[in-house]
Amino acid sequence: MHRVARIDGDGIGPEIIDAGVTVLDAAGERFNFDIDWVNFDIGSERYLRTGELLTEEDITGLETCDSIYFGALGDDRVKPGIIEKGILLALRFHFDQYINLRPIKLLDGVTTPLANKKPEDIDFLVVRENTEDFYVGIGSRFTGSEKTSLEVIRNLYSIKFGIDVESDATEVAYQIGLITREGAERVINYAFDRAQERDKSCTSVDKANVLSDIYGLWREVFTSVAGRYPDVKTDFTFVDAVTMWFVKNPEWFDVVVTPNMFGDIITDLGAMIQGGLGLAPGGNINPDGISMFEPIHGSAPKYKGMNIANPLATIWAGALLLENIGEKEAADAVLKGIESSILAGHVTKDMGGSQSTSSVGDWIAKQIRT
Amino acid sequence: MHRVARIDGDGIGPEIIDAGVTVLDAAGERFNFDIDWVNFDIGSERYLRTGELLTEEDITGLETCDSIYFGALGDDRVKPGIIEKGILLALRFHFDQYINLRPIKLLDGVTTPLANKKPEDIDFLVVRENTEDFYVGIGSRFTGSEKTSLEVIRNLYSIKFGIDVESDATEVAYQIGLITREGAERVINYAFDRAQERDKSCTSVDKANVLSDIYGLWREVFTSVAGRYPDVKTDFTFVDAVTMWFVKNPEWFDVVVTPNMFGDIITDLGAMIQGGLGLAPGGNINPDGISMFEPIHGSAPKYKGMNIANPLATIWAGALLLENIGEKEAADAVLKGIESSILAGHVTKDMGGSQSTSSVGDWIAKQIRT
Ligand SMILES: CC(C)[C@H](C(=O)O)[C@@H](O)C(=O)O
Ligand SMILES: CC(C)[C@H](C(=O)O)[C@@H](O)C(=O)O
Repeated sequence: MHRVARIDGDGIGPEIIDAGVTVLDAAGERFNFDIDWVNFDIGSERYLRTGELLTEEDITGLETCDSIYFGALGDDRVKPGIIEKGILLALRFHFDQYINLRPIKLLDGVTTPLANKKPEDIDFLVVRENTEDFYVGIGSRFTGSEKTSLEVIRNLYSIKFGIDVESDATEVAYQIGLITREGAERVINYAFDRAQERDKSCTSVDKANVLSDIYGLWREVFTSVAGRYPDVKTDFTFVDAVTMWFVKNPEWFDVVVTPNMFGDIITDLGAMIQGGLGLAPGGNINPDGISMFEPIHGSAPKYKGMNIANPLATIWAGALLLENIGEKEAADAVLKGIESSILAGHVTKDMGGSQSTSSVGDWIAKQIRT
Repeated sequence: MHRVARIDGDGIGPEIIDAGVTVLDAAGERFNFDIDWVNFDIGSERYLRTGELLTEEDITGLETCDSIYFGALGDDRVKPGIIEKGILLALRFHFDQYINLRPIKLLDGVTTPLANKKPEDIDFLVVRENTEDFYVGIGSRFTGSEKTSLEVIRNLYSIKFGIDVESDATEVAYQIGLITREGAERVINYAFDRAQERDKSCTSVDKANVLSDIYGLWREVFTSVAGRYPDVKTDFTFVDAVTMWFVKNPEWFDVVVTPNMFGDIITDLGAMIQGGLGLAPGGNINPDGISMFEPIHGSAPKYKGMNIANPLATIWAGALLLENIGEKEAADAVLKGIESSILAGHVTKDMGGSQSTSSVGDWIAKQIRT
């Protein structure tokens, strides 16, 4: 028996999670385990109703679960940032889910926007750091009348190039990113462990030539971890360049490890080359704690309730969840189910099919059961 | 008579600039102007010899020129960051070249790695802010024994989410990005001016949902500038999503304006969809000062002196330079020359041809002269 939290969230969230739950329950039937689903009413609706983002009670409840299955967040009535930071990022930080795992894999039968690339060319793993970097939420804004605060920044952080960047500015905003040695080490370790199980190659993506302080530390840690994995080939690439290679030579990559913000960017690009957001799952993992699995797409409010959204990313995220709670065979069966739905053309409109969200879930559940 | 500085830089820099100079001189002959080329010995070689990056004398000399034609920088013998920050970024900052202009245009006859995209689908302009954001070079590192400094950061910049991010860390690095109202305004104004001459659409790329302080200010400024251009359609996209749309729907974009770091990333992706770095020029522009034009690729040390590097990005950068110094007709002729070399297959190996660097330059020069 596994106790799994479901957070449907906003927009298409409830529909895609429904489809995922159908599939995971079928996998439980087939492989002899039960999932006890625990519902949490967390999202924009409640925020608009009560002003609450994440309550003490939510946290206490989630802490009784083995894992979290997460739909999607975002509502046009709420300013960008509130919900994402107050719920999604808050959960990642609270549960210290320091690994954001995003497989980039072109499944058989899926169309990629890249010319001449086949499933064997696009199959790598992005390991995104998930609790540091520019996601720590430290920053502020000053106006001219608060010049003293500006002076504080200026003096504290000796401006380089001998240039007084903001001398005449009437308003300045700043944002701080942090990388700690321990924070970098644990996620890079994880990436090397995964590389050892795969093709034994690990690429670090950073921008150490410009953001030298944080990514200089990142590189040092990467290099020192690499020393403990002599059988893994390593490589450094700058984030700007890596966007080119994802498009031109995705076959070069096996495991890619990267700080939080660059991970955000390159995994959306990765999602597109594997066929689009409708197909891209993510895991927010704390190997010693409670992990959370989600499609990496948003809540698509305009499709809410229409039963047309593509549930495959969510179902695939469900497979990652099963693997994480020790049901590896079931996880494999779910991924196989996804593949067979694609090959059978039993997919939603965005993938060229004509099926509804629930019908895709039901179909895959049936494949798994038989 | 125009006085133009040439900074060849490292690796293939001298060869590609030679080809560019040949073409620009030909354009001068044809359209009746002379270019007085002034050579500057700036780059890794000198740095390794003398320890100098950019001297007072360099600056004084460059200040006597109307424009700067810049090759490429970078040498494997120097740690990442030193040369880039000490020369390239230092020049951008010193001359306050606050606009980094990068046309993304698939020329006729060029192969894009995207399936089913034609020249009419890939034709937009990225306007990258060039003097602020995370490029200001402010950051530092602390070790555990300097805990007090850590406390300073912690207290000064109230950590959000109620989470004490780096509590047990033995080493922390931080990096600060700045956006000023004036800094955002001037580059966004420029982008809207360009949009007005084109298809009247301007897209802002940011990550205001997470880095809310700096990009919140950026969005506010974008919105207020947009109010002065009622004929220009506007749109906001997050940087992660925009990498998807560049690959899936590049035809959606006309002018894209973005802060420095995201601009760095998305223009490399843009370069790839327009056929690769061999074809991507950039202008570092100060409309009231001295601007600088360069290919956006690096110095490719391993091809140094082999006369095989693709000079088209540099020649195209030369066209942008000519336009900037008021020689619009000549600029158009250079771009036409580039297009005809591609259509004639008179190109380097990376583009499927068999020509040398200098032969491509000579051929285009000849086209322009006749
Ligand atoms: C919604 C947003 C805060 C989030 C992020 O930036 O991490 C999303 O883009 C993602 O990649 O999971
Ligand atoms: C070399 C590097 C410092 C530079 C940048 O990051 O701006 C380059 O990538 C560019 O895009 O011009």
